[in-house]
Amino acid sequence: MKTILITGAAGDIGTHLRRELAGVYRLRLSDLRAIHNSSAGESFEPGDIAEMDVALRITRGVDAIVHLGGVSAEAEWDPILRANIVGCYNVFEAARRNGVKRVLFATSNHAVGFYRRDETIDHQVYPRPDSRYGLSKVFGEQLGSLYADKYGLEVLCMRIGNVNPQPVDKRRLSIWISPRDLAQLVRIGVDHPGIRFEIVYGVSNNRRSWYDNSNATRLGYQPQDDSEPYAAGILAQHRDDANPDVETYQGGSFVTLESGGNPNAAS
Amino acid sequence: MKTILITGAAGDIGTHLRRELAGVYRLRLSDLRAIHNSSAGESFEPGDIAEMDVALRITRGVDAIVHLGGVSAEAEWDPILRANIVGCYNVFEAARRNGVKRVLFATSNHAVGFYRRDETIDHQVYPRPDSRYGLSKVFGEQLGSLYADKYGLEVLCMRIGNVNPQPVDKRRLSIWISPRDLAQLVRIGVDHPGIRFEIVYGVSNNRRSWYDNSNATRLGYQPQDDSEPYAAGILAQHRDDANPDVETYQGGSFVTLESGGNPNAAS
Amino acid sequence: MKTILITGAAGDIGTHLRRELAGVYRLRLSDLRAIHNSSAGESFEPGDIAEMDVALRITRGVDAIVHLGGVSAEAEWDPILRANIVGCYNVFEAARRNGVKRVLFATSNHAVGFYRRDETIDHQVYPRPDSRYGLSKVFGEQLGSLYADKYGLEVLCMRIGNVNPQPVDKRRLSIWISPRDLAQLVRIGVDHPGIRFEIVYGVSNNRRSWYDNSNATRLGYQPQDDSEPYAAGILAQHRDDANPDVETYQGGSFVTLESGGNPNAAS
Amino acid sequence: MKTILITGAAGDIGTHLRRELAGVYRLRLSDLRAIHNSSAGESFEPGDIAEMDVALRITRGVDAIVHLGGVSAEAEWDPILRANIVGCYNVFEAARRNGVKRVLFATSNHAVGFYRRDETIDHQVYPRPDSRYGLSKVFGEQLGSLYADKYGLEVLCMRIGNVNPQPVDKRRLSIWISPRDLAQLVRIGVDHPGIRFEIVYGVSNNRRSWYDNSNATRLGYQPQDDSEPYAAGILAQHRDDANPDVETYQGGSFVTLESGGNPNAAS
Amino acid sequence: MKTILITGAAGDIGTHLRRELAGVYRLRLSDLRAIHNSSAGESFEPGDIAEMDVALRITRGVDAIVHLGGVSAEAEWDPILRANIVGCYNVFEAARRNGVKRVLFATSNHAVGFYRRDETIDHQVYPRPDSRYGLSKVFGEQLGSLYADKYGLEVLCMRIGNVNPQPVDKRRLSIWISPRDLAQLVRIGVDHPGIRFEIVYGVSNNRRSWYDNSNATRLGYQPQDDSEPYAAGILAQHRDDANPDVETYQGGSFVTLESGGNPNAAS
Amino acid sequence: MKTILITGAAGDIGTHLRRELAGVYRLRLSDLRAIHNSSAGESFEPGDIAEMDVALRITRGVDAIVHLGGVSAEAEWDPILRANIVGCYNVFEAARRNGVKRVLFATSNHAVGFYRRDETIDHQVYPRPDSRYGLSKVFGEQLGSLYADKYGLEVLCMRIGNVNPQPVDKRRLSIWISPRDLAQLVRIGVDHPGIRFEIVYGVSNNRRSWYDNSNATRLGYQPQDDSEPYAAGILAQHRDDANPDVETYQGGSFVTLESGGNPNAAS
Repeated sequence: MKTILITGAAGDIGTHLRRELAGVYRLRLSDLRAIHNSSAGESFEPGDIAEMDVALRITRGVDAIVHLGGVSAEAEWDPILRANIVGCYNVFEAARRNGVKRVLFATSNHAVGFYRRDETIDHQVYPRPDSRYGLSKVFGEQLGSLYADKYGLEVLCMRIGNVNPQPVDKRRLSIWISPRDLAQLVRIGVDHPGIRFEIVYGVSNNRRSWYDNSNATRLGYQPQDDSEPYAAGILAQHRDDANPDVETYQGGSFVTLESGGNPNAAS
Repeated sequence: MKTILITGAAGDIGTHLRRELAGVYRLRLSDLRAIHNSSAGESFEPGDIAEMDVALRITRGVDAIVHLGGVSAEAEWDPILRANIVGCYNVFEAARRNGVKRVLFATSNHAVGFYRRDETIDHQVYPRPDSRYGLSKVFGEQLGSLYADKYGLEVLCMRIGNVNPQPVDKRRLSIWISPRDLAQLVRIGVDHPGIRFEIVYGVSNNRRSWYDNSNATRLGYQPQDDSEPYAAGILAQHRDDANPDVETYQGGSFVTLESGGNPNAAS
Repeated sequence: MKTILITGAAGDIGTHLRRELAGVYRLRLSDLRAIHNSSAGESFEPGDIAEMDVALRITRGVDAIVHLGGVSAEAEWDPILRANIVGCYNVFEAARRNGVKRVLFATSNHAVGFYRRDETIDHQVYPRPDSRYGLSKVFGEQLGSLYADKYGLEVLCMRIGNVNPQPVDKRRLSIWISPRDLAQLVRIGVDHPGIRFEIVYGVSNNRRSWYDNSNATRLGYQPQDDSEPYAAGILAQHRDDANPDVETYQGGSFVTLESGGNPNAAS
Repeated sequence: MKTILITGAAGDIGTHLRRELAGVYRLRLSDLRAIHNSSAGESFEPGDIAEMDVALRITRGVDAIVHLGGVSAEAEWDPILRANIVGCYNVFEAARRNGVKRVLFATSNHAVGFYRRDETIDHQVYPRPDSRYGLSKVFGEQLGSLYADKYGLEVLCMRIGNVNPQPVDKRRLSIWISPRDLAQLVRIGVDHPGIRFEIVYGVSNNRRSWYDNSNATRLGYQPQDDSEPYAAGILAQHRDDANPDVETYQGGSFVTLESGGNPNAAS
Repeated sequence: MKTILITGAAGDIGTHLRRELAGVYRLRLSDLRAIHNSSAGESFEPGDIAEMDVALRITRGVDAIVHLGGVSAEAEWDPILRANIVGCYNVFEAARRNGVKRVLFATSNHAVGFYRRDETIDHQVYPRPDSRYGLSKVFGEQLGSLYADKYGLEVLCMRIGNVNPQPVDKRRLSIWISPRDLAQLVRIGVDHPGIRFEIVYGVSNNRRSWYDNSNATRLGYQPQDDSEPYAAGILAQHRDDANPDVETYQGGSFVTLESGGNPNAAS
Repeated sequence: MKTILITGAAGDIGTHLRRELAGVYRLRLSDLRAIHNSSAGESFEPGDIAEMDVALRITRGVDAIVHLGGVSAEAEWDPILRANIVGCYNVFEAARRNGVKRVLFATSNHAVGFYRRDETIDHQVYPRPDSRYGLSKVFGEQLGSLYADKYGLEVLCMRIGNVNPQPVDKRRLSIWISPRDLAQLVRIGVDHPGIRFEIVYGVSNNRRSWYDNSNATRLGYQPQDDSEPYAAGILAQHRDDANPDVETYQGGSFVTLESGGNPNAAS
């Protein structure tokens, strides 16, 4: 049974994956937050990946890494820099030094959030991040590209939409992914032979999807879920945001989040 | 109308307070995460309170501070140090320099989490933190004590149990506080004359409470809610934790969260 | 006459541009190295752009920024992080806060250095950096994309080949740019109306180019120089590198530069 | 013979203890200052406990730690933070990782310095620090409480008054401790069975004491000295401070030391 | 009346100078430690000179600086670096930016401590530091040389022996300086016209001196005290150190202080 | 064959020395920049000497160190501090811990650049640096003095003029050193018996030299080159700098390089 490191395992996505992957892999969990109730088949390695020695310690001897760790929403530059840029570099570099071959990177729809909803984009478009958060996700993808091309790491970048038991609003009808579909993608990333550097969209089989996810299909992804059954109920409650940009761009409200109209605001 | 700064305003408690206090005070919200949908009567000042210049900027000109900012769960030492110790120091010191008279500090039941559930404790006990998180909360209380004694700040320390629309498990039957009861405490902290340095427990009128909260009563606190109506349903689902310490101490699972049996684990 | 800030002005490219742009713009030069012999029409603002307060100071009141500052070759992660990631963020963010509308960013052929020489690539390809240096350049491009989409900055990314009075080896026959052609591109970036976010290749009119530079042409770029007259002499002296990858990929020797076969080498 | 680590051994208290404990324990001395004249039975391990790797190195293999290290007077926040908060955390955490069972922590009367002189306080009162220095001492006590409750460390907190061959002023008549009495307390802390977490006052048998030190008595402390023989001489020379607070509170002049009436003074 | 800044004013030398210079200058005292009992004619500006903004604040508007601040004994590299190198740079640079013309720097006999006692050295010898501390003092002298030559600062470097009401051991018979003689030197440094960059030895008129202090004499220094009356008593008690180097070199025991025979000791 | 570490090996001087010393020693090259084309007889250890663990790693097991690493021109304080002061300390301290006996330090004519051109100076003069860069070089010399006196390191300080295949301007007629002459000096530093702490000038046998280099001569240095044959051609093109100081002092334009007439400029 393979041993998989999940970084950021105390968060929502990590919690879904712990449940979905129990019994499939041995799970090594890591986070700078505490983790409750680790079960048989799981071990816990606390630590902050922004410190290289932590990254080296937690990645030692695993078969693959599912890298979820970092800030998972828009935030000020300093925490993004520390957790999502330095932390991500440390994870890839530690994987290389420790000889870990596979890295699955949780990138985000916000890496391309400034594409319009009336566009269909595939895995080859030039990125258009909608936030510092999205920018950090492009950085991680590019790090994967470099380590794949230069050092032979095998890298799967999953541009995750929104992981939830069910979709929660209109925008997320288009980008929803069920926990079991995400787990399927992770299993492809861990076990599929011949991955070098791939970008896929981490979304279920949503009728309202904005993505051409043929690259995932090519790798054998067969999502089981579709947001459509939830659509009528959600749309009945939907009200357009006052700012039309929120409804125009794929990134939704992230395209309007700012450090503020106050140009002196950010530290 | 008074202007109140809420730090850490993007979190759960901040979100509850924004709703409960709308129209009561002008709210200045601050966080290092982005905030969605600020409304009339609210302004947003992003920034990381671990930087003193941010703390000075966001506290300027307010009538009171509700200091929620920081890590709100058990975590590794480095983030606790940065956000909860340095950040908290900066907020109190910035309040002093800017002449803000009132600071309401969100301390926690985890500051005293190693007291047993069969003890009733009041606001004068020597603290017994159950975690690095709880330790940082005692630090904040003591900072309040120092700034009250030395510089005349007026400080209300609220040892918050668990803020939720309704209690969610057996332990939280004893420490639950409804959003509206918390808002009542905040209004006492902002408006009650004659506060110097006070510790109160931030809990509703729970029959199952472990606290002698007479100090809050003395200040006029009249909580409206009690967890008891939820007790039967919750207890029907309850299963004791495998570790008896979790059921013995007030801090619950926090008393068993560790950097691990692995003595070399933490960085 | 417009005032232009050149960061990293003490370096080779900066020195070429100072000569080429003298009398065209007022030049504000900045670097953390000392600058000799600043002339009339030039001022010098020393400082390290890795410090935000420096970035804010040097960008105040200029009409455009030509951002050359940072490490200009492959290097360890720490200097790349400090100078090329943090420093670049600071320059864009300072431009936004100070209301500077135009930023010209000196990105590099190494942002796409893992494309093969037998491919022709345009400005829309997904990047394939060949080094930490190239990775940092993609980061800068994406920062430009974000600030253009979100804050309305006007951003020209010039993927510079090699600036030299004449080409110096076989690979650089394909990517050479003469100082006067670079100066032409800079003038387009400063003065051309209607730029939002554009990527162009900073190369002369080389017959041996690997790039489809039609986006530059669209903006009016008419390079005056071609490396071809130097080709015969250079090719007569050329010997293929022992590592065939060096001759296969556009990035040349950068694709083989490593932190070393020694996996424990890098700090 | 047990091996005892003394941190901060180059200071006054360390120098007293080196003399008093010679021949009783093997002494490992540590400090960031140099130490002169180490004798047989002593070894010197230089280093700054604000660095975790130093703390791990110096605590390895000892039977107990007498933690004196840190700033020993009121100071600005930054040195207090680095030496007394981070440094203290490192010492406790290193003790845990290295399996050191006993930690004796030199806390201070300034942890409770805002109690009045006309009050008698015991080891259970809620702390009232009089300075940043005192605040850092409460932090260390609470760290000891956490590590005792959670990890089973055995911790003796000695709230030291003033160590001196003889008392030097009126206030110190009440809080004086002779070097030999302090050494007795240290020997109790090292050798007494059954210590879990205890607070005692580090004072001699002074008739003018402000403390109920029954917890020390319970542990077998029998101080040999009393400041009373020095009282008449000292009181004859005493003049009340111009600021009555200095004479009212136990902390003496510490309660009036400030970062200044100038609210912009501290950095 | 001139205003003089004394850095490190809470230390022994600062305390002597406060007494000796009372009524002669207005004294601005600075330290990162608290200062007790500032009197009329004195003001206190707390802060850590290792932070440039502190250095800029405390040096503003003074006529001269007596720079005593920093670590005043042998210590590990990190505190020396922070306080004595970075701190010293900040003080000179802040003096330059604030237009302060005079800086008196307290350098030390340990800057030349590896000269032998049977040599007589003057102010022009190439330095031979005996410790990291002495090394940092040479750094400060050289900083003074640079700022004098380049920016026109007027700099007096006083290589202080040992300031004490009376000499305390054999070695200090040769390097003792009484407080009033030091105060005389300081007054020369503040008031003597025509100082550019001068090195003098801060010693009294000791018959046993190892220094040719003619440069001080040239500037008008007429020391009042001589250690000779104390010599017989001191020599009667003297015992040579077991290490002959201690008796051979001017630096005394500093020449043997080490990070230890353990080559892995220092962090 | 001895193994020699060259720090800063990617720079110009390092490149000259790699060619000149090929086959003479085994060369271990280190730099924070990447190195192209290491050949047989060479190995590459990347890393930043400002990190002590890097310094310890790269110096392990070598016979001598040629320390070229650091900023090699005038620069802001922060890069000088990090690379030339902290980095230099780390190299000497790592040499000591690793038992490396010989360190050759590349100091500079700018350590004495404020001496006049009409003075002839030898290796014993008190330094007069002309820049922060020169100041850092004096620091390195003094570190060498301390480590030689205290720990028995054998240290050769080479005050290098300008290394170039041929001299390039009037000033450099006086301070030029050919690569082969520098290599000769290095071989003396590595192989000459009986070096303890020596300062020599790293210049060729220039008729126009400002230095009394008899100390080098004493160690057997017999430079092969003289700048004189280039003098006529260079002088024919020479024009005096507008600032007479540039022509007066040995340091040339370094004596006028500033952080600027703007006293608020430097960060």
